[in-house]
Amino acid sequence: MDVRYINPFLVSVRKVFDMMLNMPFTLGKPHLKAEALPHYDISGIIGLTGSVTGSVVISLSKSLALQLAGALSGEEFTEVNEDCTDAIGEIANMIAGGAKKNFPGDGSASISTPSVVVGKHHVAYPSNMPIISIPCDTSAGRLAIDVALKETAVHAAAKA
Amino acid sequence: MDVRYINPFLVSVRKVFDMMLNMPFTLGKPHLKAEALPHYDISGIIGLTGSVTGSVVISLSKSLALQLAGALSGEEFTEVNEDCTDAIGEIANMIAGGAKKNFPGDGSASISTPSVVVGKHHVAYPSNMPIISIPCDTSAGRLAIDVALKETAVHAAAKA
Repeated sequence: MDVRYINPFLVSVRKVFDMMLNMPFTLGKPHLKAEALPHYDISGIIGLTGSVTGSVVISLSKSLALQLAGALSGEEFTEVNEDCTDAIGEIANMIAGGAKKNFPGDGSASISTPSVVVGKHHVAYPSNMPIISIPCDTSAGRLAIDVALKETAVHAAAKA
Repeated sequence: MDVRYINPFLVSVRKVFDMMLNMPFTLGKPHLKAEALPHYDISGIIGLTGSVTGSVVISLSKSLALQLAGALSGEEFTEVNEDCTDAIGEIANMIAGGAKKNFPGDGSASISTPSVVVGKHHVAYPSNMPIISIPCDTSAGRLAIDVALKETAVHAAAKA
């Protein structure tokens, strides 16, 4: 995957944590994800289409989800209710929406609404796609941001 | 949600079961889904963008996932491996891709690549979106097709 599609996510994650969540964090090195594991409690999943197609998935523990939902809304969360899943979906939306603005080229990518998965699970991607995972560590645990994108055929051909 | 976005899914599901899976099935009545439950073992999630934005999620038990993957590929599956999640993603892709061709209006919707969730879970959608669930019963259990779509602002305004 073109690194020019990964850097926008680093910028966007920083901005969301600094400006929307106001929470200390350490952004780790993006790395190629070899398999679908590990398991998480919660994932926010967003589809991308346009000059690239794929998905952006943020995955985290239940305790971190409660913390992030609280940091976003200013309320305290003790259970993963509808307001909490809405908040996790909104954080995924802000990360993907912020990143796509800085994609290379014509930047014509669009993002879908988020779906939020609740329950111990892992996420598998089409086996022919490279997945770049960005770890983001907080005092309440790690947020993993998986970026699974490929340039669409028409866009890749136009560049060649 | 406009029923003209649901009928294309009924047509598409029938076509996938008749032509690609070659498996007997009974399509139930589409209904408004009141809450995120029940829990499933596997979900294939696809994002849509364009004249509508949202997601299409097919959810099923592990045993039905093994059956459908087998029916698609002609091989027997005994575990939810990468080939099986690829097959479930491909079935979600065929259902969503077939449906969007018959959307009303300019039909400019695009679909993302699928993400496949493995593990006992439920899927939550943004709380302001209506979810239409289409049940599809087979001898190996039920496939639930959740359609969560809204017309995008620019498209809805153009119609008004």
